Amino acid sequence: MTETQIESSTENSPEDIGLVNYEDFVSVETFTFENGGSIPGFTLRYETYGRLNDEKSNAILICHAISGDHHCAGKYTNDDRKSGWWNNMIGPGKAIDTNRFYVIGSNCLGGCQGSTGPSSIDPLTGKPYGLNFPSLTIRDIVRAQNLLIEHLNLNELYGVVGGSMGGMQVLQWAIEYPDKVQHILSLASAARQSAQAIAFNEVGRCAIVQDPGWEEGNYALGKGPNVGLSVARMMAHITYLSDKGMEIKFGRSRRNDSKGHHLTKVEFEVEGYLRYKGQSFTNRFDANTYLYFSKAIDRFDLHGETDKLEDVLSKVQARTLVIGFTSDWLYTPRQNREIVIALLRCGKNATYAEVDMDLGHDSFLIDSPELYDFVRSFLND
Amino acid sequence: MTETQIESSTENSPEDIGLVNYEDFVSVETFTFENGGSIPGFTLRYETYGRLNDEKSNAILICHAISGDHHCAGKYTNDDRKSGWWNNMIGPGKAIDTNRFYVIGSNCLGGCQGSTGPSSIDPLTGKPYGLNFPSLTIRDIVRAQNLLIEHLNLNELYGVVGGSMGGMQVLQWAIEYPDKVQHILSLASAARQSAQAIAFNEVGRCAIVQDPGWEEGNYALGKGPNVGLSVARMMAHITYLSDKGMEIKFGRSRRNDSKGHHLTKVEFEVEGYLRYKGQSFTNRFDANTYLYFSKAIDRFDLHGETDKLEDVLSKVQARTLVIGFTSDWLYTPRQNREIVIALLRCGKNATYAEVDMDLGHDSFLIDSPELYDFVRSFLND
Repeated sequence: MTETQIESSTENSPEDIGLVNYEDFVSVETFTFENGGSIPGFTLRYETYGRLNDEKSNAILICHAISGDHHCAGKYTNDDRKSGWWNNMIGPGKAIDTNRFYVIGSNCLGGCQGSTGPSSIDPLTGKPYGLNFPSLTIRDIVRAQNLLIEHLNLNELYGVVGGSMGGMQVLQWAIEYPDKVQHILSLASAARQSAQAIAFNEVGRCAIVQDPGWEEGNYALGKGPNVGLSVARMMAHITYLSDKGMEIKFGRSRRNDSKGHHLTKVEFEVEGYLRYKGQSFTNRFDANTYLYFSKAIDRFDLHGETDKLEDVLSKVQARTLVIGFTSDWLYTPRQNREIVIALLRCGKNATYAEVDMDLGHDSFLIDSPELYDFVRSFLND
Repeated sequence: MTETQIESSTENSPEDIGLVNYEDFVSVETFTFENGGSIPGFTLRYETYGRLNDEKSNAILICHAISGDHHCAGKYTNDDRKSGWWNNMIGPGKAIDTNRFYVIGSNCLGGCQGSTGPSSIDPLTGKPYGLNFPSLTIRDIVRAQNLLIEHLNLNELYGVVGGSMGGMQVLQWAIEYPDKVQHILSLASAARQSAQAIAFNEVGRCAIVQDPGWEEGNYALGKGPNVGLSVARMMAHITYLSDKGMEIKFGRSRRNDSKGHHLTKVEFEVEGYLRYKGQSFTNRFDANTYLYFSKAIDRFDLHGETDKLEDVLSKVQARTLVIGFTSDWLYTPRQNREIVIALLRCGKNATYAEVDMDLGHDSFLIDSPELYDFVRSFLND
């Protein structure tokens, strides 16, 4: 679509959600973690878009990926350069339609954007938790989200939706609270982390914890292992794209200043892009949260001790849509498909859809009318 | 094949090459690099296996990959734990048959295992070159090898063989010295580095140069950016394997001691394996050489300024075999195939063979009767 076309179609096109605010849910009860350990209450930051109907039957929870947050749509001020991370998906008339749904963007327990995590102050010591923050699992994240949902006086969720680590939360929601969830929509995710995906996460963790700035996790707020975190992010970012996508986007394009002998300067465009991604990540994300989230992802395994996906998924009652992307090599189409195959074996109402996009794992974040159609149809069903 | 089968077939099986020695070729003439800069002579370390025939027509040069060296086959002493890196391929009766061929394993210019590279002493300053070593290209590596070949009084090479970065040298040999090379065999390589592959190399370089131990490349011998280098190697090693290969080899197997809350300890087997690979690499490899080699690879582009592979490959006179591996996602089958397609368009004698192996890029190093058959047939032709 050209810019002219976009302008001329504004009248009928979905509109942006406009200005939004976040809120903080504070739980004052002790929260005990799946693998042991507890914290004396916690804060979850969240946002809501659209209006809850009188029957309280139109709430959709959005679960974010490892580097995401609760700010899914809209802007805080008109001066904000960017809208929330899924602004293309969520809004009036969009695929997740805020004219119809009451949409909740929830931060994850363990996070670093207003929610309680390793960078939060431990009230018992007056210092950041650091590595004293208990071991975190996807199930812990979901159980904390459920307390937010109870706080919002919701007995049920029309839907739970998320991609990547968000998709893992989506699946865990349907398993943990089968009576509460009517629709689940998981995108670009997996029922368990593969050896290769664990391997990439481990390299990122090694880069972080071997950075002298990490200080055994006790770095001062505002400081930290920025080199290690940026290296981890650069590498992870490659896994979010695809060979073909990078070829199209960058190829072997060079910076103008790349003549001559530069061993450490940016020579190829793709290098500059990755360095920017790595550097900017350190300005907004906490390294310890990255360690905790990546471990929660690596430990996620719905195949369980019986190594049979059906044993766990038999609990699911929600209608399920799983969307995979052809070029996603982090969570492959095969991994997405096997979730639905297992659900169908259990006699569940489940569908698999595959979107042919070149952009790799991050395809679920990209503008795609085909993707929007799948999401819209499923939620309007 | 079971161990019993191996034992019972010893009589007819290829034998190991036995004990070998390396030698040093010292060039005392100034070597000028492709991108400018020069050094007042250099050393290349090399090994030879088998015997040169009277016609001097049976020499095969082996080119190594980024982390390889000249020690391709045999052992230096009976106490050596491992043989050379391609011992399965090179030896009496093996696919590269030392009963017939005079095989030369040559280290690369810029290397760190006895050849002149950034860790060598600059005779003008009495200190290691460090980043004062000139910018290095695959063509420089090949031109230095050619001086070794001249030193050995060889007017021609029966073959030039190599995988990965070695395959790039192979192609460059046939372009640079078309009259000298009769057969070229490139495995798991590419005519140019892709954006994704540049991206991975760049993450490795960033890990190295941001390690405080790097000291702008001026670290003392025996010291250096070991954390950065190990992170670079861990990540690169993932790109040498495959999703399926890692699933088969490691899956989600855990270490016995992985119970409980270990954010920084090895929990999954694949983590321990990668950490070992990273750590052991720092004991044998120089970080600056890694920077120079990775840059030489990234800059390799036979498509040239016309962006047409045929324009460069039209110079080739050697019979060519290119072997790709189905699970290689670093240098994909498509990238290997396109070399042969371009050669065929130029009317050259070229063949593409694809080996179906699960182990990813490193498949060219692995025991495979099918691979051996391709190599043997091509060289015996």
